[in-house]
Amino acid sequence: MAKIPVGVLGATGTVGQRFVQLLAVHPWFEVVAVTGSERTVGRPYREGVNWVIGGSVPDTVADLIVQPTEPTLEIGGTPPVVFSALPTADARELEPVFAAAGYAVVTNASAYRMMDNVPLLIPEINPDHTGLIAAQQAANNWPGFIVASPNCSTTSAILPMKVFQDAFGLEAAIIITLQALSGAGYPGVSSMDILDNVVPYIGGEDVKLENEPKKLLGAFQNGALAMADMRISAQANRVPVLDGHLASVSVKLGQPATAEEAIAALQNWQPPQICRELPTSPQNLLVYRPEPDRPQPRLDRDTSDGLAWTVGKVRACHVMDIRYMAITHNTLRGAASGSILNAELLAVQGYIR
Amino acid sequence: MAKIPVGVLGATGTVGQRFVQLLAVHPWFEVVAVTGSERTVGRPYREGVNWVIGGSVPDTVADLIVQPTEPTLEIGGTPPVVFSALPTADARELEPVFAAAGYAVVTNASAYRMMDNVPLLIPEINPDHTGLIAAQQAANNWPGFIVASPNCSTTSAILPMKVFQDAFGLEAAIIITLQALSGAGYPGVSSMDILDNVVPYIGGEDVKLENEPKKLLGAFQNGALAMADMRISAQANRVPVLDGHLASVSVKLGQPATAEEAIAALQNWQPPQICRELPTSPQNLLVYRPEPDRPQPRLDRDTSDGLAWTVGKVRACHVMDIRYMAITHNTLRGAASGSILNAELLAVQGYIR
Amino acid sequence: MAKIPVGVLGATGTVGQRFVQLLAVHPWFEVVAVTGSERTVGRPYREGVNWVIGGSVPDTVADLIVQPTEPTLEIGGTPPVVFSALPTADARELEPVFAAAGYAVVTNASAYRMMDNVPLLIPEINPDHTGLIAAQQAANNWPGFIVASPNCSTTSAILPMKVFQDAFGLEAAIIITLQALSGAGYPGVSSMDILDNVVPYIGGEDVKLENEPKKLLGAFQNGALAMADMRISAQANRVPVLDGHLASVSVKLGQPATAEEAIAALQNWQPPQICRELPTSPQNLLVYRPEPDRPQPRLDRDTSDGLAWTVGKVRACHVMDIRYMAITHNTLRGAASGSILNAELLAVQGYIR
Amino acid sequence: MAKIPVGVLGATGTVGQRFVQLLAVHPWFEVVAVTGSERTVGRPYREGVNWVIGGSVPDTVADLIVQPTEPTLEIGGTPPVVFSALPTADARELEPVFAAAGYAVVTNASAYRMMDNVPLLIPEINPDHTGLIAAQQAANNWPGFIVASPNCSTTSAILPMKVFQDAFGLEAAIIITLQALSGAGYPGVSSMDILDNVVPYIGGEDVKLENEPKKLLGAFQNGALAMADMRISAQANRVPVLDGHLASVSVKLGQPATAEEAIAALQNWQPPQICRELPTSPQNLLVYRPEPDRPQPRLDRDTSDGLAWTVGKVRACHVMDIRYMAITHNTLRGAASGSILNAELLAVQGYIR
Repeated sequence: MAKIPVGVLGATGTVGQRFVQLLAVHPWFEVVAVTGSERTVGRPYREGVNWVIGGSVPDTVADLIVQPTEPTLEIGGTPPVVFSALPTADARELEPVFAAAGYAVVTNASAYRMMDNVPLLIPEINPDHTGLIAAQQAANNWPGFIVASPNCSTTSAILPMKVFQDAFGLEAAIIITLQALSGAGYPGVSSMDILDNVVPYIGGEDVKLENEPKKLLGAFQNGALAMADMRISAQANRVPVLDGHLASVSVKLGQPATAEEAIAALQNWQPPQICRELPTSPQNLLVYRPEPDRPQPRLDRDTSDGLAWTVGKVRACHVMDIRYMAITHNTLRGAASGSILNAELLAVQGYIR
Repeated sequence: MAKIPVGVLGATGTVGQRFVQLLAVHPWFEVVAVTGSERTVGRPYREGVNWVIGGSVPDTVADLIVQPTEPTLEIGGTPPVVFSALPTADARELEPVFAAAGYAVVTNASAYRMMDNVPLLIPEINPDHTGLIAAQQAANNWPGFIVASPNCSTTSAILPMKVFQDAFGLEAAIIITLQALSGAGYPGVSSMDILDNVVPYIGGEDVKLENEPKKLLGAFQNGALAMADMRISAQANRVPVLDGHLASVSVKLGQPATAEEAIAALQNWQPPQICRELPTSPQNLLVYRPEPDRPQPRLDRDTSDGLAWTVGKVRACHVMDIRYMAITHNTLRGAASGSILNAELLAVQGYIR
Repeated sequence: MAKIPVGVLGATGTVGQRFVQLLAVHPWFEVVAVTGSERTVGRPYREGVNWVIGGSVPDTVADLIVQPTEPTLEIGGTPPVVFSALPTADARELEPVFAAAGYAVVTNASAYRMMDNVPLLIPEINPDHTGLIAAQQAANNWPGFIVASPNCSTTSAILPMKVFQDAFGLEAAIIITLQALSGAGYPGVSSMDILDNVVPYIGGEDVKLENEPKKLLGAFQNGALAMADMRISAQANRVPVLDGHLASVSVKLGQPATAEEAIAALQNWQPPQICRELPTSPQNLLVYRPEPDRPQPRLDRDTSDGLAWTVGKVRACHVMDIRYMAITHNTLRGAASGSILNAELLAVQGYIR
Repeated sequence: MAKIPVGVLGATGTVGQRFVQLLAVHPWFEVVAVTGSERTVGRPYREGVNWVIGGSVPDTVADLIVQPTEPTLEIGGTPPVVFSALPTADARELEPVFAAAGYAVVTNASAYRMMDNVPLLIPEINPDHTGLIAAQQAANNWPGFIVASPNCSTTSAILPMKVFQDAFGLEAAIIITLQALSGAGYPGVSSMDILDNVVPYIGGEDVKLENEPKKLLGAFQNGALAMADMRISAQANRVPVLDGHLASVSVKLGQPATAEEAIAALQNWQPPQICRELPTSPQNLLVYRPEPDRPQPRLDRDTSDGLAWTVGKVRACHVMDIRYMAITHNTLRGAASGSILNAELLAVQGYIR
């Protein structure tokens, strides 16, 4: 079967590199175009990129000529698909331009996550939200569309919230994150700031953590999205860890549950049927660890090739109802792989081909 | 004025070393006796100790002969005073023996913190709790007594809780700590476990964090202690930081308060009058930092020579009422210096001389 | 083809765990017996081991009952083969006992590395040194024998020394190592000692670095080994890196060479023909990196599944002749995998079957 | 006695901040002018600076208005004195302009370190090299002059080299450094590059390490400098340490010496008499540590307030003659404090007042 051709916008940054690396071995997609900043345009990708993510530039992409980020990319496909790894400001300006020009924009950027009718997607959580695409196209008069993946910190906390919402209802959450350095890109956090230290601040992150779950956990009904009705308070911290965002969460449930019931809910939960068709969705999606000292970033971030949620410390909360800790790999599940999963969902649902 | 002679029990461990270091330059106290394990008994302290805390063995203590930890220490003083840096199991066995033999035991160990009538003390928070000593002596038929300082993690979170309790009432708290390596002693945490990692577990710590504040914030009335009536949920994490415990806390207040009111309460709060007489109690006890990225362990742990609470990120909590972050130096304010402050309080109140 | 059955002595320690992990997927060998300390004897391996090396206990070994380290192990094979991951003192006592009882002891321990007629082996460097086995058996009247792999720090520096010895002659070397934490086992180095620090001392390591290369680079002639005639000065340092030993080496050659000639020698060097038959010997054995900032432990330690030498910074030395830096993965190439390679060599040469 | 007024060029960078911090409490000097980049000119220093070095902006400097780096600064003094913390390119352009305009430029920048007749100074090592100032002024027709302090990596290795040169003669040195993050300024090294890693490259550092010692150890004779005749080979590495450069050095001596003789030379060496008059030169300048695991960056960098050399591991080298390890605090002895010492020397020698 022929692969679906795709482009990568902002392919020379760290998230872009991760897209290129993962797509180079993807069973369904094939990178045929890459875009980059003015400095790199016109050069072979191999030369334009400062490859920092480990391994080496995939051969299949190395000789592509970096193009400007303009909606004149010749990609093929129906509609033509672009993964966006653009910086926020560029994403804000350019993603609508691509959607208006008929491209399917599968973005990892934050610019349009909370925009009306843009699906904020994790296929294992809310695959039906792609139903918003029709309304998005109608409202904006776009032949193309935008779908977004959530912030990497939101991702780390969200799956158990979904499970508990399904099982017991979910009214409130206090989320404290311990986030990895790679979440800030490269060069990102100065070593002078973080060695022998913790920084209790990541610009904009608390707001994302407090809003995005309400959209992800919202209900798609009658062609529109009803945000989940819950209160969230979040505090993001940077810790000296290379990869893996750890979230410590206390939740107030709609109906009471014991720790045992919460654990059972986690262990019994199954992702939507459609996820079995997505090649990147792992068999072990939610790994519950009973040990008192798990999850840990270094030990658990690579579970299921960085695509699982590892969850532990599920206990009664003496103030709210239940508390837990969860970890995901922030540059895989929480970024590039997450967007690739979104594209796989779009393919299965027939939005792209 | 002659100094009060004191002994240090368990003087060769890391907490014991810190006692020795701090007491060597103390204006009121003078170390005249040190005890240690069987391996070190009979040797000069200089030789028995494996000094790991930086600097060097104080000259005034270096030649003291390490004695066994038995209540036959000749110290002088009325009553004779011993600081206890004993491991928990030893403390459980030996501290009552010393109290029964007439010694004032000023302990940093956890064994008797929650025992009836043992004051769990931070002079700036509950200096009146020493009133429990009489009941303790009566109940146990001890001529001596025990006073305890709280766990270093409790310490990091507690002062703003006290301020808010005074100002608004305090009904509940969710406490997440990011704790330093030195809290585990030496050799403590293996480098293989913590480099590029976070460990979400410290044995026994959550329970201490959930109980000790209720005693510290309790009311001494009619010769007895009424524990504070509040719910606390705690999650302790170990992070790769050398010193300084950081606490992220959300609180439910007795009456609502805005962030501005909470900040004003912190800025206006004054420790009890008696603290002005304690040489170790710093002038800048509660340092409020308005910057969004403070407090940080490395930048703030040494404030006021490691004796201050640095507090920041005071904000409305969307789930409870107010949240904040606070840091203290875990081996100074949270351990040795805390116990020394307790002894200073006992001296001012006339319990020791 | 039936696999060769093997035992692992000291299988519950960190090196033993690595043996078990690697042998569980080995094409030629199969673990049929494991030994451990008194505490673990009689229990299933799964229960006796505190598995700390990542991943999980292989199913094929999990249910083996831990046996005492005595030469009554029933292994099968001709002769029966044991991999030794024993602590030094145990190795010193027990390895000769096993050799005397007819076992082939393939050891990673240091006890007999420098003993007369014990081959100190890296198959890609000195496969002919197994010729010493006959003399070893004769001298000790052993039906079995011992072969040893070198210290992990020696390993990191040695391959370019071999290349330069072959190409130009080698008269002297100054070796400075920057060694990883995992080299000290578990719990090994205290986090309190190494965070934000370097420790310029690893007990016994300098002597090993100064002696083992002379044996590895010695000549097997007429049934005996002539140690290489060279002077070596070594300084081992511990750095806060999880895995990967980095060596900075200056060498004095037998005949002068430019940096270009040295690089060419590295690039043209081929391991002995027999290594092509060893399944663990990687195709890319010696990776030369021309970038000025390579090799780096985190980026290069996993090259060729942790079995390669990555070499860079090959330059003229203004004091000696040539200098370079090299890295190997200390727990793979430098320990367990190195010994497994030795066993593969023994199998190809017919010493075990 | 009135203080000597001074200016600080490039006062808003990290080295500039350190100058400001140290000079604020200096007994002889007083900062009366600060310069900065275009962005900061015209603003109070307190506002223009992003203070990152710990503590807070000294009150005495906080309200100075940042001026452009032009030789119209009104400072007073004879000649007017400026400390230069300029980036290299700016230093290359501007320092001669200041010297030509009559200023005494005491620089920490590298631009003119190796220029003919510019003294490269460490007062405890070569105070007589200020004799070059006359030739410098004559050759360039400058009423002012430039004196420079060496690179922080050179500084870490140099004092034992001087001692051995004095005692035995010095013919060659191989220097391997393990350098701290703060040497790269702020933000400097990305945390993504250095956590769990070592980077064997610091741009330009090897060349500085190979040249500067020859000038520092050269002889001032007949109004000119004869560079020391020695061969040096250097390899600079970056390690995840906040402060403190560690050097591992092997030296070839003019006449043989045992380790004991080398240690005795270190212990008996006295700095030049004039250093007793310099308030920043510490009483304990060269601290010899006999322990096998010293010096260590974290434990030894603050010795004598960061102004000492701590030296250990003095042993016979099997390849050259003697080897040792030494550490200095790179931002104090190796940078700002070093330049302040140079100014103190100039004051005592009458070059400034």
